[in-house]
Amino acid sequence: MTRIIHLAQIKDICKNMDFGPLIEEGFAAYSAGRVVVPPVGEMSFAAPPGDTHIKYGYIRHDDCFVVKIASGFYENPLHGLPSNSGLLLVFSQKTGLLQTILLDEGYLTDVRTAVAGRIAAKYLAPQKVKAIGILGTGIQARLQALELRSLTPCRELVVWGRSKKSLEDYRTALEQEGFSVSTTREVAAVASTCTLIVSATPSTTPLLTAEQIRPGTHITAMGSDTPLKQELDPAILARADLVVADSISQCRERGEISKALAAGTLQEDEIIELGEIINGRVQGRTADDQITVADLTGVAVQDIQIAKAVCAGLGEEKE
Amino acid sequence: MTRIIHLAQIKDICKNMDFGPLIEEGFAAYSAGRVVVPPVGEMSFAAPPGDTHIKYGYIRHDDCFVVKIASGFYENPLHGLPSNSGLLLVFSQKTGLLQTILLDEGYLTDVRTAVAGRIAAKYLAPQKVKAIGILGTGIQARLQALELRSLTPCRELVVWGRSKKSLEDYRTALEQEGFSVSTTREVAAVASTCTLIVSATPSTTPLLTAEQIRPGTHITAMGSDTPLKQELDPAILARADLVVADSISQCRERGEISKALAAGTLQEDEIIELGEIINGRVQGRTADDQITVADLTGVAVQDIQIAKAVCAGLGEEKE
Repeated sequence: MTRIIHLAQIKDICKNMDFGPLIEEGFAAYSAGRVVVPPVGEMSFAAPPGDTHIKYGYIRHDDCFVVKIASGFYENPLHGLPSNSGLLLVFSQKTGLLQTILLDEGYLTDVRTAVAGRIAAKYLAPQKVKAIGILGTGIQARLQALELRSLTPCRELVVWGRSKKSLEDYRTALEQEGFSVSTTREVAAVASTCTLIVSATPSTTPLLTAEQIRPGTHITAMGSDTPLKQELDPAILARADLVVADSISQCRERGEISKALAAGTLQEDEIIELGEIINGRVQGRTADDQITVADLTGVAVQDIQIAKAVCAGLGEEKE
Repeated sequence: MTRIIHLAQIKDICKNMDFGPLIEEGFAAYSAGRVVVPPVGEMSFAAPPGDTHIKYGYIRHDDCFVVKIASGFYENPLHGLPSNSGLLLVFSQKTGLLQTILLDEGYLTDVRTAVAGRIAAKYLAPQKVKAIGILGTGIQARLQALELRSLTPCRELVVWGRSKKSLEDYRTALEQEGFSVSTTREVAAVASTCTLIVSATPSTTPLLTAEQIRPGTHITAMGSDTPLKQELDPAILARADLVVADSISQCRERGEISKALAAGTLQEDEIIELGEIINGRVQGRTADDQITVADLTGVAVQDIQIAKAVCAGLGEEKE
């Protein structure tokens, strides 16, 4: 019998969970070749604009496989609807039968994406962070800041956005969470004051340029998850001491790395996979003045790990 | 709010529906370039053996998009479980929001696959059919025969299978549906007596050979839906007057046509798409003595059309 779990119950289960160790373990297994992740399924819509991603896969010799469908339709808020939506499906790897439907409405995607940002910062951010820079004011721009609380004592945020209203809303929300927030409409102001920068926008043109980046800066770029989106000047990746992908095979096709490969500012053998750093096969940041970039496109193994954690929280069910 | 529809309700809605016209319309729209169907998502499992297909897409300017997940785990019956399972998800093309979950357990995939077989036979089978040949004894081998009842008055079945028990079960089931059934464990006996043959097995080696096929025969090959499966000798496709694909792009990668292309017994410009025949751009069978082959790999547009029909049967629901 298929279990159907609604958002409220999922949020309740997630309340006191730290998904960090599980998702690190997922990235490590992925980079060690123990996870089957076929190419991302994708549909793009023009009117109204939206995209849907299907991410799916399984850990070899595990009990389950997972299919995750997540959509972003950016005009939804004009109609009082959330931009992001979706669900996760958990199937038995032994029988193919559907076990659990997690009607998360995109929530678990938001969470696992934010957790990946924290993991990237754990291995790549400089030791001392005076201010955290955030590009974007949406849900992910908020979650990224919140996630970083367990990693650094820094509570200074410099937030860039295009709309005064969104910036004020962001400030109000994050100040309630204990941050001190300054807002700006100049990206340069972020680069000049922050050495830990997270970009979480749906931009299709570069926001940060190579000249703006100071030594000792780490950038986690997570907004770009389609072949069209782009947040960083490809020259930043050329200048970086370390360029880290969540998945090299995915980053060939989408995200900042794909743009830098196409521009010739980066060669594929210069890219390190996040799981290799977690595995200890490659070192993360080794000096305070290094420039590091993590390009996160979102990998099915994150969905597998968070789905499994939620199912474990629900308790066992026999087939 | 997402509607969740269980199998019993789906079967009830389907009871008196003829999906033929809708699925013909779907193939026609597909071949006219009005349907977006990304490459099939696929996972294969070794122990126990199974495969999962994710088929998804949308008709341009339509209201919805559909994601279908269907699995076949062939050892399930040893544990009292059905081999096939799955579900269909219907989303709004305007908002990306999940509208309806059809927990069909693979039923709608079975139905739309059988309907496609009838459509192929409608355009390609010879006018007079003395006996229908069926390779295989599974659910699809049964549904194919049942579907053909509305197309031809022929009620003579010659059924090939490997197991005496399965053949006897097949005979019992189909005799109850008004057929006269003879069973055989020699494929040649099917080819020598039947001019309308449907192959519906999970075979990975050719069952029918080119020498066995008599002039005036039509073969619908529908068992092979992965790059590994194969039911026909590639030389049959070389000998055929018409080779028809449900989707040329899919048949490049999987099914009988992919094997014949790889073997060099068929060139891509010799392949006709089923929707082009339905559209009237290309003729189907034009003479009684032609040999014709339809290779059906299963296209998302079939899933879209059947999901829409079931949702229409449920009645409208506003977002």
